Amino acid sequence: MYWNDKLIEEIIERAIREDIWTGDLTSDLLISEVEVGNGVILAKEEGLVAGLSIAEKVFYQFSDEIVFEYLLKDGDMVRPGQQLAELKGPVREILKGERTALNFLQRLSGIATRTNRYVEAVSSYPVKIVDTRKTTPTLRILEKYAVRVGGGYNHRMGLYDSVMIKDNHIFAAGGIFKAVKKVKEQLAHTIKIEVEVENLQGVEEALNAGVDIIMLDNMEIPEMSRAVEIINKQAIVEASGGITLENLVEVAATGVDIISVGVLTHNIKALDISLNLE
Amino acid sequence: MYWNDKLIEEIIERAIREDIWTGDLTSDLLISEVEVGNGVILAKEEGLVAGLSIAEKVFYQFSDEIVFEYLLKDGDMVRPGQQLAELKGPVREILKGERTALNFLQRLSGIATRTNRYVEAVSSYPVKIVDTRKTTPTLRILEKYAVRVGGGYNHRMGLYDSVMIKDNHIFAAGGIFKAVKKVKEQLAHTIKIEVEVENLQGVEEALNAGVDIIMLDNMEIPEMSRAVEIINKQAIVEASGGITLENLVEVAATGVDIISVGVLTHNIKALDISLNLE
Amino acid sequence: MYWNDKLIEEIIERAIREDIWTGDLTSDLLISEVEVGNGVILAKEEGLVAGLSIAEKVFYQFSDEIVFEYLLKDGDMVRPGQQLAELKGPVREILKGERTALNFLQRLSGIATRTNRYVEAVSSYPVKIVDTRKTTPTLRILEKYAVRVGGGYNHRMGLYDSVMIKDNHIFAAGGIFKAVKKVKEQLAHTIKIEVEVENLQGVEEALNAGVDIIMLDNMEIPEMSRAVEIINKQAIVEASGGITLENLVEVAATGVDIISVGVLTHNIKALDISLNLE
Amino acid sequence: MYWNDKLIEEIIERAIREDIWTGDLTSDLLISEVEVGNGVILAKEEGLVAGLSIAEKVFYQFSDEIVFEYLLKDGDMVRPGQQLAELKGPVREILKGERTALNFLQRLSGIATRTNRYVEAVSSYPVKIVDTRKTTPTLRILEKYAVRVGGGYNHRMGLYDSVMIKDNHIFAAGGIFKAVKKVKEQLAHTIKIEVEVENLQGVEEALNAGVDIIMLDNMEIPEMSRAVEIINKQAIVEASGGITLENLVEVAATGVDIISVGVLTHNIKALDISLNLE
Amino acid sequence: MYWNDKLIEEIIERAIREDIWTGDLTSDLLISEVEVGNGVILAKEEGLVAGLSIAEKVFYQFSDEIVFEYLLKDGDMVRPGQQLAELKGPVREILKGERTALNFLQRLSGIATRTNRYVEAVSSYPVKIVDTRKTTPTLRILEKYAVRVGGGYNHRMGLYDSVMIKDNHIFAAGGIFKAVKKVKEQLAHTIKIEVEVENLQGVEEALNAGVDIIMLDNMEIPEMSRAVEIINKQAIVEASGGITLENLVEVAATGVDIISVGVLTHNIKALDISLNLE
Amino acid sequence: MYWNDKLIEEIIERAIREDIWTGDLTSDLLISEVEVGNGVILAKEEGLVAGLSIAEKVFYQFSDEIVFEYLLKDGDMVRPGQQLAELKGPVREILKGERTALNFLQRLSGIATRTNRYVEAVSSYPVKIVDTRKTTPTLRILEKYAVRVGGGYNHRMGLYDSVMIKDNHIFAAGGIFKAVKKVKEQLAHTIKIEVEVENLQGVEEALNAGVDIIMLDNMEIPEMSRAVEIINKQAIVEASGGITLENLVEVAATGVDIISVGVLTHNIKALDISLNLE
Repeated sequence: MYWNDKLIEEIIERAIREDIWTGDLTSDLLISEVEVGNGVILAKEEGLVAGLSIAEKVFYQFSDEIVFEYLLKDGDMVRPGQQLAELKGPVREILKGERTALNFLQRLSGIATRTNRYVEAVSSYPVKIVDTRKTTPTLRILEKYAVRVGGGYNHRMGLYDSVMIKDNHIFAAGGIFKAVKKVKEQLAHTIKIEVEVENLQGVEEALNAGVDIIMLDNMEIPEMSRAVEIINKQAIVEASGGITLENLVEVAATGVDIISVGVLTHNIKALDISLNLE
Repeated sequence: MYWNDKLIEEIIERAIREDIWTGDLTSDLLISEVEVGNGVILAKEEGLVAGLSIAEKVFYQFSDEIVFEYLLKDGDMVRPGQQLAELKGPVREILKGERTALNFLQRLSGIATRTNRYVEAVSSYPVKIVDTRKTTPTLRILEKYAVRVGGGYNHRMGLYDSVMIKDNHIFAAGGIFKAVKKVKEQLAHTIKIEVEVENLQGVEEALNAGVDIIMLDNMEIPEMSRAVEIINKQAIVEASGGITLENLVEVAATGVDIISVGVLTHNIKALDISLNLE
Repeated sequence: MYWNDKLIEEIIERAIREDIWTGDLTSDLLISEVEVGNGVILAKEEGLVAGLSIAEKVFYQFSDEIVFEYLLKDGDMVRPGQQLAELKGPVREILKGERTALNFLQRLSGIATRTNRYVEAVSSYPVKIVDTRKTTPTLRILEKYAVRVGGGYNHRMGLYDSVMIKDNHIFAAGGIFKAVKKVKEQLAHTIKIEVEVENLQGVEEALNAGVDIIMLDNMEIPEMSRAVEIINKQAIVEASGGITLENLVEVAATGVDIISVGVLTHNIKALDISLNLE
Repeated sequence: MYWNDKLIEEIIERAIREDIWTGDLTSDLLISEVEVGNGVILAKEEGLVAGLSIAEKVFYQFSDEIVFEYLLKDGDMVRPGQQLAELKGPVREILKGERTALNFLQRLSGIATRTNRYVEAVSSYPVKIVDTRKTTPTLRILEKYAVRVGGGYNHRMGLYDSVMIKDNHIFAAGGIFKAVKKVKEQLAHTIKIEVEVENLQGVEEALNAGVDIIMLDNMEIPEMSRAVEIINKQAIVEASGGITLENLVEVAATGVDIISVGVLTHNIKALDISLNLE
Repeated sequence: MYWNDKLIEEIIERAIREDIWTGDLTSDLLISEVEVGNGVILAKEEGLVAGLSIAEKVFYQFSDEIVFEYLLKDGDMVRPGQQLAELKGPVREILKGERTALNFLQRLSGIATRTNRYVEAVSSYPVKIVDTRKTTPTLRILEKYAVRVGGGYNHRMGLYDSVMIKDNHIFAAGGIFKAVKKVKEQLAHTIKIEVEVENLQGVEEALNAGVDIIMLDNMEIPEMSRAVEIINKQAIVEASGGITLENLVEVAATGVDIISVGVLTHNIKALDISLNLE
Repeated sequence: MYWNDKLIEEIIERAIREDIWTGDLTSDLLISEVEVGNGVILAKEEGLVAGLSIAEKVFYQFSDEIVFEYLLKDGDMVRPGQQLAELKGPVREILKGERTALNFLQRLSGIATRTNRYVEAVSSYPVKIVDTRKTTPTLRILEKYAVRVGGGYNHRMGLYDSVMIKDNHIFAAGGIFKAVKKVKEQLAHTIKIEVEVENLQGVEEALNAGVDIIMLDNMEIPEMSRAVEIINKQAIVEASGGITLENLVEVAATGVDIISVGVLTHNIKALDISLNLE
């Protein structure tokens, strides 16, 4: 699993600042700084765990005397009542970090859980479930991590790490062929080119232009199957648009390589997880 | 409606940086900087609009030549196919901002829409639906704004603007009375004190201690009604814990003043909104 | 005592950057990095100590090999010549931190000392001395801490954690009653409302509107006494405006709950404290 | 007058964030964004004005529709009741900026006023009154500006723009001569060297070492006069330590070139200035 | 040409802060803020211009009254004495920005000039000259822009936008085939994989593993030619290592697609450009 | 040697962010976090080492388990093949830091090496080689450090720590004498004044005005010698403009105190240094 710890820590620092600002009035006034205690993080519903190290980092921001012991790891399935981690240390600081830690952990676990449902549904097909750029602003690095934890794959991280030519770009350039040619004249050889097409004519043009990935946008199943045949491994085939758990298997059965699913990150249902202090 | 523009702009800048980073490879290579065009933002499903000014600010970050015209305003109900706003200006910059603007707008509209469903359900009762601190880390100021747009009210913004005494605090202080007393000895007179209680004995202790708000945590309906009678306007009464659309009216009927609902922000379903460029 | 360590550390980092910038020309050129020594922080006049942990944090920013030992703690009264803390470690780094550490410590001790004089003057009355928003820009969190160290209490931290309705607001809303009503229609139930009144009619209106705190602004003593009688514990009573050590007891004797004193932070006389290296 | 606008703006942004944070609850709820009004900034006591452009910048941060008209300029003497500036624009935004703008303006005017008193006291002597590094942490650039407004001069801005050799440095190097020699072996030719001496022997050593400035630290008046004679224009002579308005003229009369006065910035008494909205 | 204006502006702001810090002592003291004047930016040696818009942005940071008129544009060849741009506006602010603007412009033009020499040398071959990650820390986005201005292409921007498998990675994974397989099991389908090989056996393994780009590291010319034959368009071929203007044509003649040249950015000779004020 | 660790660390953090951003795709996917190894940093050409502690800090940013052992220190001459440092620790983190660490180390060593060549060339003269403000934007503090490592001295750090009066300033003030007088009326006594002159008349005027440093700008050798005679130790004499290794000794022989050389930092040739992992 890959990411950049420094970016994550900056996000965590901003999250804590948002919640604490000038101070935790309640815990600072009522709990002595020397009081220590134990806590457990436990699930209240079934799902896939993601974000334990984020929770750990949140608590460490409050005190390096907090000991955070992993009982599960990211990617593990958890049952209601099962413990994810144990905490020991200054109660006051654990209380301050509780809500922020859970807010991260619950959301990321929710994303991993939903992703995993999609991944499992097509596990018998050689297809990858991937995310989109429809992520929560400023938290994309975390949400794309949760998708990977859930067994999914990432699409591009942003507008900078891969070319995706859509209808407005095609129109401005005067056609798919011209658009791809213009891009290739300036693009780094290390970057892939993807074109979004809406019909079989677009598929042919994209193949002629020599692209790396062809995205079939909102195609009907039969047309999609035909597109896969035409492309015939000359490019990676990605299905996209309006794909749900209901029609997912049908799409996978067409033989596409990749299915991108916006709902993985634009419908985020927090997994019910809580912290119990003893 | 209140907020701090500067904080919002910092969030927007980070969101844009996350998506663009070293540059939008596709639009920068294919679209001329002098090409201008029109776009409309339109809804694909019914809901309550929230975040139009955020979308506007996103586009303005890319170019001050973009004209963003409001056709609706935050708090308006939108039908599928209805337009929210019109855009004119450099196509290249509109395309760069599209995804980030929609990511904000869709999420905030989703929160406002869900909140409004709760608010409408109890509109015949003198009760307020309020949010919690279970918000997306670093975006709380926006999500709490969306709750207000949806007709809800805010609970405290963070740990710093109000005291909330929970079981761990009570235990550490040696009881509700002692906890409240200790807080009052140090707290600013401008800050309210809320206590979370789980039974009628807690209610009595909280009343004796002289708190501003009593939160009835996960109480059964009859006990809740009894608590409302006992409190008898001597404190604000807040119901909390496991409240859903199903049991919401029942809770409201007990006479509580406030119902806090975590799901308003911990289950975020983006409202389907898109941008069409012409 | 409450605050947010992260905010404090950011202030300290900026203070150090301001003083060191590209380097301490003198100490870096003359003192070897391996030379160690001892120092004492001592008072040269009588006062109340505040900010020792800030001084400690300043030195730790320069070297984690510096040992800072507390001989007194915040809130202690110090006599001329008395030692507050001992330092051991690399002389070069102690010299670099000296001025910044003392600049914090002297100012905060100055605030605590002045506050304490006000607090002591009315110690036989059940009244609280509170600060205002007339603090040094960007250092409010520290200065309000120093007020608490001196035995005072805080008023609101900023414009965001409590409502304070003044004449311009009242005028814009069309009267106290309408203003309070309009606020209540939108405000979180966790936030208190204070109204500033200038005469007994204002007191009556504020009471009718149901506010939490009534501020008597620049009232004569007899009118103030009458206001306290009228309010009769239905709201917290705060006296404000032109209050000095001279008229403080007279004000306290009227029975007000709170006396807010701008001079606590808008006249900052640094307590004379120095660092002696041996 | 010199400074760096960008640094000033960063300070102002932090000051505003501190006061507004998530929003001005009162003004945002009660004042319409279209309401416009006029205000005047006026003095309530006599003093020297400093910081008007800071106040202006504060208001511009809230709205570029605010018109700020100068009636006086920094360095002008103001009488009680006299107006410093007029404001026109959105009342809501003027109210939000009021406290922060005044907090800057009052403190800086306080510093300029006190400085001017020292400058005037020795106006018949060819001596300069200068400040020290005993400034409010993070606000040094502003406070040193206020000293210049008051007719004073600046000492070094920090540890980076000039060498100041004190007793600990001398001890570590093995004497004044060795210390100065060691510094000169590494220092940029653009940087001056100052040595702090406590007696006439120190003066002689410093002269022999060839320093630019000799600081006479806490010397008695006769010894100071003798030092001036000995130095005889071979170095700039600075008097420092325990200098007050009482002994200032006596010190000036010794013929020193420079008198540095810590109290200019470590005792900050805000000048009474207020904003009246009509 | 693509990049992110916001990142560029952050770099410029830091550059200005570094040079101005607390103020430009000379210009602020000697030049009135109302004095206006004209200036020209002109070349003193032949080269390719890059960074004019950076220079423009530097001046705009000082004053929006400065008018910067382009006489040439990035990518133009300039002769000694030829003018690149004209400036009009406040002399004081032009003087403040001069050095920083030229520091950017001279370095970027130096990079573009050198790159262009390499590009021209192989202009008769279908090969691209590309840069490396051997760029000046924190200025990569600018330096890679200058390479494109000079007619070169970019290699990856960083470790995040493309996979480059080197000997240590191959060793850790147990061979090229295993390494590529392991990467593919986790990598986004939008990211290319490049492998660095040192001999023909490596070439065969990389081809079998199905990589996008094969880098021939420090190969002799005959072996390089043989590698190109073996690869036979099944992957992009990149030559790297010790390539200079002397051996460049020889390498291009082998038929490789890409030649990466570290010296483009690790030997930066500023083009001689100056600003003349009239 | 002097500098400010905090400023350096900020530069390093930005450099790492630039290279890693969302993660090192290759190393994170292929190298286990528990794998440890050894590496050596070694030179491939002769030169003077500068920046070892920067390289060390880069690696520590990735992991505090990396042990960085110095075999040489900044300022040492290194031969091809000679080792500068040894590294032990997690291979994955060493690989992530490699390029950034080397980018710093190679550039700074390149600057130190070139500087040393100038310093050695005039080692028999009592003259100092100094740098200019023609440094890489945002990295001046590091580059000026490298100049000192190479045996050179620094000129001013920026526009804020010394006055440098050039032709435009002189013209605006109405002559050298008036310019110096105007500066002295406002300048801190701790700051030196330098004037740039182009002929002997300028030298005379500068001497009359009483400046600290006279810069002889682009003077012919005989005129320069005459200027040195005229100045006769009444001011520091700095030669500047078009000075190369070829004419350097000739300039030194005129008796000037200081020779400032722009090429030290505006032509940066990275010293060839690499990291070998075992």
